Amino acid sequence: MTTRPQLRQLGLNTGKKARLHRILFQHGVRNGTAIFLPYDQGLEHGPRDFFANPLASDPSYIVKLAVRGGFNGIALQIGLAEKFFWDYAGEIPLILKLNGRTDIPSDAEPVSPVHASVADAVRLGADAVGYTMYVGSPAQERDFEQFRQVREDAHRFGLPLVVWAYPRGSAIDSKGGKDSFYAVDYAARTAAELGADIVKVNFPRPELQAGARAEYARTFSPQQAIEAVVRSANRTYVLVSGGEKADDAAMLDKARMAMEAGGLGLIFGRNVWQRSYDDSLALVDQLKEILAKYPAS
Amino acid sequence: MTTRPQLRQLGLNTGKKARLHRILFQHGVRNGTAIFLPYDQGLEHGPRDFFANPLASDPSYIVKLAVRGGFNGIALQIGLAEKFFWDYAGEIPLILKLNGRTDIPSDAEPVSPVHASVADAVRLGADAVGYTMYVGSPAQERDFEQFRQVREDAHRFGLPLVVWAYPRGSAIDSKGGKDSFYAVDYAARTAAELGADIVKVNFPRPELQAGARAEYARTFSPQQAIEAVVRSANRTYVLVSGGEKADDAAMLDKARMAMEAGGLGLIFGRNVWQRSYDDSLALVDQLKEILAKYPAS
Amino acid sequence: MTTRPQLRQLGLNTGKKARLHRILFQHGVRNGTAIFLPYDQGLEHGPRDFFANPLASDPSYIVKLAVRGGFNGIALQIGLAEKFFWDYAGEIPLILKLNGRTDIPSDAEPVSPVHASVADAVRLGADAVGYTMYVGSPAQERDFEQFRQVREDAHRFGLPLVVWAYPRGSAIDSKGGKDSFYAVDYAARTAAELGADIVKVNFPRPELQAGARAEYARTFSPQQAIEAVVRSANRTYVLVSGGEKADDAAMLDKARMAMEAGGLGLIFGRNVWQRSYDDSLALVDQLKEILAKYPAS
Amino acid sequence: MTTRPQLRQLGLNTGKKARLHRILFQHGVRNGTAIFLPYDQGLEHGPRDFFANPLASDPSYIVKLAVRGGFNGIALQIGLAEKFFWDYAGEIPLILKLNGRTDIPSDAEPVSPVHASVADAVRLGADAVGYTMYVGSPAQERDFEQFRQVREDAHRFGLPLVVWAYPRGSAIDSKGGKDSFYAVDYAARTAAELGADIVKVNFPRPELQAGARAEYARTFSPQQAIEAVVRSANRTYVLVSGGEKADDAAMLDKARMAMEAGGLGLIFGRNVWQRSYDDSLALVDQLKEILAKYPAS
Amino acid sequence: MTTRPQLRQLGLNTGKKARLHRILFQHGVRNGTAIFLPYDQGLEHGPRDFFANPLASDPSYIVKLAVRGGFNGIALQIGLAEKFFWDYAGEIPLILKLNGRTDIPSDAEPVSPVHASVADAVRLGADAVGYTMYVGSPAQERDFEQFRQVREDAHRFGLPLVVWAYPRGSAIDSKGGKDSFYAVDYAARTAAELGADIVKVNFPRPELQAGARAEYARTFSPQQAIEAVVRSANRTYVLVSGGEKADDAAMLDKARMAMEAGGLGLIFGRNVWQRSYDDSLALVDQLKEILAKYPAS
Repeated sequence: MTTRPQLRQLGLNTGKKARLHRILFQHGVRNGTAIFLPYDQGLEHGPRDFFANPLASDPSYIVKLAVRGGFNGIALQIGLAEKFFWDYAGEIPLILKLNGRTDIPSDAEPVSPVHASVADAVRLGADAVGYTMYVGSPAQERDFEQFRQVREDAHRFGLPLVVWAYPRGSAIDSKGGKDSFYAVDYAARTAAELGADIVKVNFPRPELQAGARAEYARTFSPQQAIEAVVRSANRTYVLVSGGEKADDAAMLDKARMAMEAGGLGLIFGRNVWQRSYDDSLALVDQLKEILAKYPAS
Repeated sequence: MTTRPQLRQLGLNTGKKARLHRILFQHGVRNGTAIFLPYDQGLEHGPRDFFANPLASDPSYIVKLAVRGGFNGIALQIGLAEKFFWDYAGEIPLILKLNGRTDIPSDAEPVSPVHASVADAVRLGADAVGYTMYVGSPAQERDFEQFRQVREDAHRFGLPLVVWAYPRGSAIDSKGGKDSFYAVDYAARTAAELGADIVKVNFPRPELQAGARAEYARTFSPQQAIEAVVRSANRTYVLVSGGEKADDAAMLDKARMAMEAGGLGLIFGRNVWQRSYDDSLALVDQLKEILAKYPAS
Repeated sequence: MTTRPQLRQLGLNTGKKARLHRILFQHGVRNGTAIFLPYDQGLEHGPRDFFANPLASDPSYIVKLAVRGGFNGIALQIGLAEKFFWDYAGEIPLILKLNGRTDIPSDAEPVSPVHASVADAVRLGADAVGYTMYVGSPAQERDFEQFRQVREDAHRFGLPLVVWAYPRGSAIDSKGGKDSFYAVDYAARTAAELGADIVKVNFPRPELQAGARAEYARTFSPQQAIEAVVRSANRTYVLVSGGEKADDAAMLDKARMAMEAGGLGLIFGRNVWQRSYDDSLALVDQLKEILAKYPAS
Repeated sequence: MTTRPQLRQLGLNTGKKARLHRILFQHGVRNGTAIFLPYDQGLEHGPRDFFANPLASDPSYIVKLAVRGGFNGIALQIGLAEKFFWDYAGEIPLILKLNGRTDIPSDAEPVSPVHASVADAVRLGADAVGYTMYVGSPAQERDFEQFRQVREDAHRFGLPLVVWAYPRGSAIDSKGGKDSFYAVDYAARTAAELGADIVKVNFPRPELQAGARAEYARTFSPQQAIEAVVRSANRTYVLVSGGEKADDAAMLDKARMAMEAGGLGLIFGRNVWQRSYDDSLALVDQLKEILAKYPAS
Repeated sequence: MTTRPQLRQLGLNTGKKARLHRILFQHGVRNGTAIFLPYDQGLEHGPRDFFANPLASDPSYIVKLAVRGGFNGIALQIGLAEKFFWDYAGEIPLILKLNGRTDIPSDAEPVSPVHASVADAVRLGADAVGYTMYVGSPAQERDFEQFRQVREDAHRFGLPLVVWAYPRGSAIDSKGGKDSFYAVDYAARTAAELGADIVKVNFPRPELQAGARAEYARTFSPQQAIEAVVRSANRTYVLVSGGEKADDAAMLDKARMAMEAGGLGLIFGRNVWQRSYDDSLALVDQLKEILAKYPAS
């Protein structure tokens, strides 16, 4: 078991520390861990994600679920944040997602365009901002450049910066793929090197080795892989993403491994709301039970 | 029947609410619905659209028609707004269209370039601004980036933001096409996620399924489709576009379905003015009769 | 005969109206018509245009010709305006041309880059600014974007904005070509929609129909074509360009047709100065005789 | 023999006139002519240019040579200007070269990126700024746009603007090549149209006619060609570039022809310093003897 | 043996001189030489570089090593600088690396995007900034443009500017390759011409001549090559990079040759930390022994 760094070790400025403290110790399990509800799928995948549970198409339903489920925060794009967060403003931390894209055009050279600002987040009373970085994209030049402005503004306004670090693009496809250990490990490190306070990654799959660098072409257990990823991120906290809806047991297993590895917590969307309201709350309870076992030292 | 959200539920700032109230309750049927007259075809398609009724080439004719017909507003590009709106300034709300393009070059990777500002709209006394977003365009990165500035300025100046959400581009062509249920549904949601106050869509055609996502490859009635689109947009009001001139009965039918689905109203151009002046007014009367049946709750 | 709109009908701000009044009523025929001398060919085509009359290579010669010939204005690029206009500053209105390009590289996707500002024009005492728009260029996105700044600045400083509306680019070539009625008509309208105060077009050739839109694939007389173009531009005044040096009788004929159609006047360069000084002045007299027959109403 | 325009005829603002006067009448031959030493080859070609005379690799050696040789100025990139000009600051005018590139990548679509500002030149006490324009490059759009800022700043700060007008790029290659009369003539005119105060050109070679415009496909003597180029530039002073090291007699001949044609002077680098120190000074003396015969009128 | 220029000869402004003095005379061997520890490999190559010594994945470990080893400075990207430098702030100079990229996508046309600012460096108390320039990249236009801002800001704030001058891109591959004498020599000169205060280069390999310019297609000893490189850089100090971990004896040899040639010192990362902590310190001692023999004159 790796140790999660303490909030006071991170060299954060006062605003970031204040808001992270609020998120980690005044919401969720209140022990320094976190479970977030991301709700950007309507943009990233389109309404098709809501066909499994049509109620989930309604942002009011989701915000209410996040509040009732006792999440540490909810991640919304600017449009939904403007029109739906005010109903519950103050009851749950908002992570304003600053960039996003539809999945309609090719993602061979993806960049997620910035369509909201850190100033928007401040105005809306958000406690953090989110940014999707497509690590390894042939278009990384534009990605890093626009990220720079976000990082600077987040620092200036004292908002913690959560990076969705997604290996993507044709170059990744030929080097093990987006979920390979190599790709996820590199993505976590990249977010840390560039200034993320929290990084969201998919759970690495060490068996995907085709095309990956030689160092990763050995046998690693999932636990070894996630621990390496958390080490690579070091003082950047790690959230494990749920991704597509999957088998509950497998998902809980990954959650446990991530926490054991020193992760900060979880960010689960479709796995949570692509089921009935009550089932969603029940699942969240199970996840929070896991988090409760990993309090801040 | 879905319920249209009330103006006071939308979380709008004071300026947006004031201007939307003026548009929706002091013009048109004055019951919270809307019928708009778009007049950007001279740019978007060229003067050929006026050959069916040469008088319609004259912006004076059109503005007068909008005033006499009791529309909730007229949408003009900056050049015509500067030179023709002042004759009737104050008599009808102006939606200043901030971007636009000719249809001469390829539209495989379309972006509609911004050629006017929200500040121009304020200066001209407009009550709203309009923006065309080509949802799914391979160039969505630039589209979203320029939209961001428009959204921020519209918020800052308190002008409602109407998004022409048009699925377009090579990626859309291969996924069901621009009028498919999949494409229209995703377009409406995208506008909502990114911060539109009102979204203009084409009426979805659920029978166009070739290439669309699996979730849409089932049988849906037109009524089901338009209801889904309105749900996806949620607190972003939906306007159904007339598109090319079509059979009147079919058009009235779509108008009824849209209102039944909880839509805000209609935005009809060529269907209105590609006929004689008197016929135009008669058609508008029919459309307003429909709107009258769907007052704000 | 179509009627040319009056200056007071155009909704112009005070500065634009003041300067247009000076141009139209205190120079040239002084009756609200105009004949301009464009002198940007040294950049647009290179010195080869001066081989027919080597004296015309000297900007001093040309500015003197414009003054002696009693033109309503002369159009110069910034470099020549800086070094040659001061000799005659105040004696003739200057239209500062704000963009331009050489014809050396391919013009498949043309944009005419902006290399001077409206502020330069104000500083030089210019009475108007000129902008070349390549309507239909595959690069129209950049064209419209840079035009936006020019339009805003021209409005802010009160300078009339003259648009050289040139259909160009591979998309135009395949739709009837740059001089087709379809292309010229669309170009005039585009300039009007985007905010030109005056638009300069080539005389349309209705017989060029290959590839043009169906509406234009009929028989139109040149008079019908130019009238349609003037109608499409409406409250944006129309200037007919001389283009390459041509037969004098044909040229005078076009001038007459343009004025009959409600055009504002003429902008003739090579046709004027690719002959001896005295012949130039004689031709100008003939053109001004035509203009004299079309006073402002 | 063409007459060189006088400084007071050029319409320059006070700062430009003051600095040009200092360059032309207080340095070099002090008669209104000029000989400049360009030293940007280390960037433009790399250190290989110094293999013929390794001492020339040291900027100190070159600046000293320029001072001792009595040049009218030395042209340096920002890095060398910062670290080497201060030794001799005030003893010789500095032309700060604002853009430049290595010759490593393809020059099919060249633009010379700006890496220093007019403000840097002011700070360093430079008396002029230099800009390389690749006339005819397929990338001329970016070239003209960045030139605009340079021109505006040079005007604002009163620094004379020297344009290295180089025909370049694939379009030039197919139209006679970079040294053809057509290309050089067009380049000189382009610099003048866009606002250069001084233009540096290669000596035109009228025998290169393959692909050039019809007007240039005749027999011209070198003297006729350079006279035409100077006429095309008109009130923009012309400097003839030395280019690669060549036969001394031929070089002196070109210098004589250029001055006879009304040129301002010479800008010779490799021809000067790719020989021993004493030989360099001897050559400069010969060149200055020529200049002495062409005093300002 | 070439002589290294003295600090007071470089024409630096006060802030740059003050900080360089601190780096060169108050840290390391304190004799005007330098050995730096670069730690940007986590971004540039990914965590795979840490597999040889997993402890090196932890930035705390590396910063401690730099302090204990008595380096003249440590180079970090913004993310690690924010979160790890504060532990040791003031104990060792920080070079904030302002740009960087992952090695996942193709590097045929590389540019290293800027993701931190000189202002960030000032805020963090850094004593210098670092910038990677890919000399010869087909994308050099963007590279030079972004470098310009960095150079200007570094001058304004008085921070020494260290340029990682890396020949890269398809054009370099076909001209001798990134380590050829031709490429390294040109890269060093380019950094000097554009305004670097210190340039970091790989040790040149004069035997790589395929495709290089004629001047370099002769036999040069390594010592001759590195001396030429130092001469090309002249008043820009030269650091020799360690590159991939190599044979110790060969590495020490290169270090000696570099110092003999007048180099400033060394910047060794993987060669240092891809071994045990004690071995790292032992190696650093050997390197510092070499530096001790080359005090500032």
